[in-house]
Amino acid sequence: MSDAKMIEYRDASPEVRAVFDDIKKSRNVPDVNNFWKVLARDPATLKRIWESIKEVMAPGALDPLTKEMIYLAVSVSNGCGYCIASHTAAARKAGMSEAVFGEVMAVTGMANETNRLANGYRVPIDDNLT
Amino acid sequence: MSDAKMIEYRDASPEVRAVFDDIKKSRNVPDVNNFWKVLARDPATLKRIWESIKEVMAPGALDPLTKEMIYLAVSVSNGCGYCIASHTAAARKAGMSEAVFGEVMAVTGMANETNRLANGYRVPIDDNLT
Amino acid sequence: MSDAKMIEYRDASPEVRAVFDDIKKSRNVPDVNNFWKVLARDPATLKRIWESIKEVMAPGALDPLTKEMIYLAVSVSNGCGYCIASHTAAARKAGMSEAVFGEVMAVTGMANETNRLANGYRVPIDDNLT
Amino acid sequence: MSDAKMIEYRDASPEVRAVFDDIKKSRNVPDVNNFWKVLARDPATLKRIWESIKEVMAPGALDPLTKEMIYLAVSVSNGCGYCIASHTAAARKAGMSEAVFGEVMAVTGMANETNRLANGYRVPIDDNLT
Amino acid sequence: MSDAKMIEYRDASPEVRAVFDDIKKSRNVPDVNNFWKVLARDPATLKRIWESIKEVMAPGALDPLTKEMIYLAVSVSNGCGYCIASHTAAARKAGMSEAVFGEVMAVTGMANETNRLANGYRVPIDDNLT
Amino acid sequence: MSDAKMIEYRDASPEVRAVFDDIKKSRNVPDVNNFWKVLARDPATLKRIWESIKEVMAPGALDPLTKEMIYLAVSVSNGCGYCIASHTAAARKAGMSEAVFGEVMAVTGMANETNRLANGYRVPIDDNLT
Repeated sequence: MSDAKMIEYRDASPEVRAVFDDIKKSRNVPDVNNFWKVLARDPATLKRIWESIKEVMAPGALDPLTKEMIYLAVSVSNGCGYCIASHTAAARKAGMSEAVFGEVMAVTGMANETNRLANGYRVPIDDNLT
Repeated sequence: MSDAKMIEYRDASPEVRAVFDDIKKSRNVPDVNNFWKVLARDPATLKRIWESIKEVMAPGALDPLTKEMIYLAVSVSNGCGYCIASHTAAARKAGMSEAVFGEVMAVTGMANETNRLANGYRVPIDDNLT
Repeated sequence: MSDAKMIEYRDASPEVRAVFDDIKKSRNVPDVNNFWKVLARDPATLKRIWESIKEVMAPGALDPLTKEMIYLAVSVSNGCGYCIASHTAAARKAGMSEAVFGEVMAVTGMANETNRLANGYRVPIDDNLT
Repeated sequence: MSDAKMIEYRDASPEVRAVFDDIKKSRNVPDVNNFWKVLARDPATLKRIWESIKEVMAPGALDPLTKEMIYLAVSVSNGCGYCIASHTAAARKAGMSEAVFGEVMAVTGMANETNRLANGYRVPIDDNLT
Repeated sequence: MSDAKMIEYRDASPEVRAVFDDIKKSRNVPDVNNFWKVLARDPATLKRIWESIKEVMAPGALDPLTKEMIYLAVSVSNGCGYCIASHTAAARKAGMSEAVFGEVMAVTGMANETNRLANGYRVPIDDNLT
Repeated sequence: MSDAKMIEYRDASPEVRAVFDDIKKSRNVPDVNNFWKVLARDPATLKRIWESIKEVMAPGALDPLTKEMIYLAVSVSNGCGYCIASHTAAARKAGMSEAVFGEVMAVTGMANETNRLANGYRVPIDDNLT
């Protein structure tokens, strides 16, 4: 479905290799995902996105699993096939059980339904919610 | 911005009152939100949506706060103004701190960005993710 | 919420007046909606969109009410506030009852929910549906 | 494109079989679609979604074909590949001709275009539409 | 992934052939894309869309490459696989370099991120922007 | 419509002031937009988004006006009211004429229409486009 040109480590510039090395080390994986290999076509974007992801997904007030579930829910809502596949895997690696997966899907589906009911009925915001 | 007709408890049919009563009891609130008052125009939808929400948002494998954060993230991603207002309030009531709110927004924004990068670069799904 | 510059009939060029006249005649209304008054800022777009709308919304294999309900469902799903207001009015004018409105909303909400469940569970297309 | 785990009737729990039996009987089909087989991984969601769909899609103020066309229009607008395939088939089974299909697509496309023109030109809602 | 019925030139009606001929001549290509072959199932839509596209994409205040980049950015944002493939090709044919492609993707991604931050934080429009 | 808490310069921490100062200097404006004042509630996000925006929107292979037009087109397509207001203003400041604005809107609308026609007709990707 795609002719996406991917850049492998062996063919990468030192700048790209530095990002790939940091991804592999941070995630403790032997190779980076295809997402990073295609972004490597634009080294500035590769570096910016990786640094943003690393900062945003780091443990903070929220734990990594919760962040991955939110990432997955948004990706499902947007219908991004690649992102659904990769973030389902990431969430499972972070501990998402089958029961939790089912609840993330149920909430995501429900939110999409009531979002449209609120739109269609043009619900005025409650005074105490403004 | 809206001429949405809302049905107040005093004007509601017994069928609608039963749902309103259950919402007020389940959530321990003195009155239901505008969302429910407009849905009351269609009692079958009111009942179906409330029962679905009650089931989906009940504590399960996920706690209520996590569910509210996912609901909020999806509503933000979809740009539903009413839903953002009401689920921000619900998440705060369930314990969402300002720091957690900031992280939910950051993850939601980031997911929307990388969803499009994955679309635009037409990233093929990794063999180990299929 | 908007500083949209609108062009009134009295200030319009002959080219714009011709479109406004055709809208008023076709719809049997004394004035055109704000949508057309803002599009009049770009006469070529005004003309193209009106001619397209006139062709697409004309009675054909589907009656005007069904077309308006589909238009409304899509506008609700996309969250376009102006379009929801104007196409709710248009559908009512074409005969949409309160009961029908409720069912259009219910179907629109349900479709948005199951669209995401199909995305999230990555359902393979059935052999007999390809 | 998907490794979605599907649950076949022979491997299903009594709870899941009861839903599958009701789907098969209601729709007069020999087997359920893949959508239901994947949802069966979460029996509570399977049951809730089926009961909601059955209620929402039942003949009411609107006939089943009109409901299927609205479902299809929303699915097309959202770009859900599985849903487009399954609801195109369902609408055809309910009587959608090729001419009607063409008009549903034309209205869906047109609505998506004018939704964005209304957004971009920031059209203020007409006084008589509020 | 699709059983889309396509109409080839040799099987097309004179009405459809006239549109195909105009596309081939305007774009200086030996055959039309699949998009036009499927739209040919509905000759009125085929003709309307082609005439609209021809008008909208013609050189005007904006050059063709800029228009193709905007078309691509919207298609990426909406996640339309076919449109991403065809408009990436069209933009390259119009002169989009790899560096420009990278910047279109970066802007598209960034806009999707900040759109959600503005939604989620419910930013009030600045007085000088209304 | 919003109770968004905004942080003014006089109340900002040194970390936030540094970002505000850089925005004001880079854009040659006396004060930052509301968008930045709400993001200041989360200084890490404020800094990350500003640095990303500054990098992505800098002149490169594309000029600033073209980048602003793409940003606007995406924001219109997503229906983000705040973003439409602020990026229309930014594009005008960068030189967008009324004629160019009209063409950006026309292309954005058209892309949204054909995106859905491609979805609905399930157009297979041409062999020469893969």
